[in-house]
Amino acid sequence: MSKKANTLRDLGERGIIRWFQDLITPFEGALLSGMEDAVAVPLNGEALVVNCDMLVESTDVLPGMSANEIAWKAGVMGLSDLAAKGAKPLGVIVSLGLPVDSQVNFAAALVGGLNCVCREHETYYLGGDTNQSLELIIDCAAVGTVPQTQILRRNGAKPGDLIATTGEFGYTGALFEAILQGHSKPTKLVNRIRKHALSPRARIKEGQALASTGIVSASIDSSDGLAWSLHELSAASRVGFRIDNLPIPDICKQFAATNDLDPVDLALYGGEEFELVVTFPAKKWTIVSEMVQQVGGSLIRIGEVVEEPEKVLHMNGEEREIEPKGYEHFSK
Amino acid sequence: MSKKANTLRDLGERGIIRWFQDLITPFEGALLSGMEDAVAVPLNGEALVVNCDMLVESTDVLPGMSANEIAWKAGVMGLSDLAAKGAKPLGVIVSLGLPVDSQVNFAAALVGGLNCVCREHETYYLGGDTNQSLELIIDCAAVGTVPQTQILRRNGAKPGDLIATTGEFGYTGALFEAILQGHSKPTKLVNRIRKHALSPRARIKEGQALASTGIVSASIDSSDGLAWSLHELSAASRVGFRIDNLPIPDICKQFAATNDLDPVDLALYGGEEFELVVTFPAKKWTIVSEMVQQVGGSLIRIGEVVEEPEKVLHMNGEEREIEPKGYEHFSK
Repeated sequence: MSKKANTLRDLGERGIIRWFQDLITPFEGALLSGMEDAVAVPLNGEALVVNCDMLVESTDVLPGMSANEIAWKAGVMGLSDLAAKGAKPLGVIVSLGLPVDSQVNFAAALVGGLNCVCREHETYYLGGDTNQSLELIIDCAAVGTVPQTQILRRNGAKPGDLIATTGEFGYTGALFEAILQGHSKPTKLVNRIRKHALSPRARIKEGQALASTGIVSASIDSSDGLAWSLHELSAASRVGFRIDNLPIPDICKQFAATNDLDPVDLALYGGEEFELVVTFPAKKWTIVSEMVQQVGGSLIRIGEVVEEPEKVLHMNGEEREIEPKGYEHFSK
Repeated sequence: MSKKANTLRDLGERGIIRWFQDLITPFEGALLSGMEDAVAVPLNGEALVVNCDMLVESTDVLPGMSANEIAWKAGVMGLSDLAAKGAKPLGVIVSLGLPVDSQVNFAAALVGGLNCVCREHETYYLGGDTNQSLELIIDCAAVGTVPQTQILRRNGAKPGDLIATTGEFGYTGALFEAILQGHSKPTKLVNRIRKHALSPRARIKEGQALASTGIVSASIDSSDGLAWSLHELSAASRVGFRIDNLPIPDICKQFAATNDLDPVDLALYGGEEFELVVTFPAKKWTIVSEMVQQVGGSLIRIGEVVEEPEKVLHMNGEEREIEPKGYEHFSK
């Protein structure tokens, strides 16, 4: 018999979430399962998609991040799950928790940054709530809509589909190493990586374009890392993945080489990147990638969906397992 | 020249909110002004009303509150502003921040409590986000709809209207005194007050009934205290109020008498009561109060709207000013 869990640390974030689900009365009309990262309810023939994501100073803010960068990250976190469902945002509301001795200039930069991240994603910072708290908290709730028949889910990937992403991976993995582990040279390279890592985009337009094709079989964002996203898609769709083209930016490869790190690890396990990871029938590649290009995005084919529940990376003739690792709150 | 404000403490919560507004690009299609407690956007002919309210352990949790009571308060805070706009909730999403060493049983009681408060208000706890934080944070975002033509606002009260509330005031004022100031005897009385104060209702059904009449000229909830609500309504509608019937429960009067406190202070300045405060033409009293009764609620006439911007209480032949006091974060 396993030892009884007493604190949240004993369960871990994902254990907690699974266990919370049993305590909640399911809404029969829900359009997304409880294991998705957003909720959706029917409203006048459309799906109303709602997502909240809380940024917490002690766990989510890297040393040296500016107020603008913190606000940007919080906004993208809130919007990215709407993108993964193919929803068009109606707006964002924000609950702020600020320590009483926060500088007015810092708070102004946060609010200005939240306004900016909303406007850059063609939506609005509609309002919210302001509170006094012990540490900085930014909770963004994003609301949007998508036609019910077009909503993107995690659970429809089929063997024979291809798997693609809206961008490359590795910037945040490299930045975490640079900041947290002290692998910080050469500085120019780190600064370029930092700029990419701290100004991600929620793939809102790409998500809507993908939803409008009607042929995307599964979709998730990569906010917990590409490896974790693959494992989530795999569990929801009961399929496996063979990845043969891991898209890693050159500057991340350079950073890895300079610091004796594995670029594959940086790309797979970094987390806090906000690309969409989607599957669809291989023969539809041209039409789907063109739809994404039409809205200014791009799609990179990274591999194929297979029947076996394996998650393997094939690179340079070698085969390597993709581990179920990613950032987790309440981890031991 | 006034001294330059440097920290949020120097501005106070309401100063901060006014000042934040200037940093945010207004959404032209918004159906509620930026000074309202919720936001509303048009959606397929209806108003989609969204509200978030953050409960913070260090400022919002009274000593001795159980997990269930905390969750109940957080849920009611989120739902009450929907009630004040006349909206019917579609559901609630919740961002939780929990210290890593939180007991599993405590977290379970929180989640169960949030489910319970949603179900008791005939809506659903749809999902949300779970995070590790330094103190307990519960941010409830409630989403609902109301026909655009029926949405209730703060700014339409007219001289000659009457002003009414959906319930009595004083329980939380008395409880705060009992717990925070140590006026805690006699115990039986405090326990009865505590029960009322910690199990408030968001007046969801009453709000919808009031909205459906089409004749309510202004509406607000009393979460910052009755006095503050009157001042907010007054500022938004550019009118004054003469209150001649302050509804105070007998047990609060008893508590006040026993502890040498003023029951009027308990009723006016307590805060965290969630009654609706509404105005409408005096001649419509019968029809409006009957509509509220039909959904199981009640309406108490407390006074009248006047042209002068005064806020006065007439009681037992005496006249007394209602001060603009209420709970405020970041207060000096």
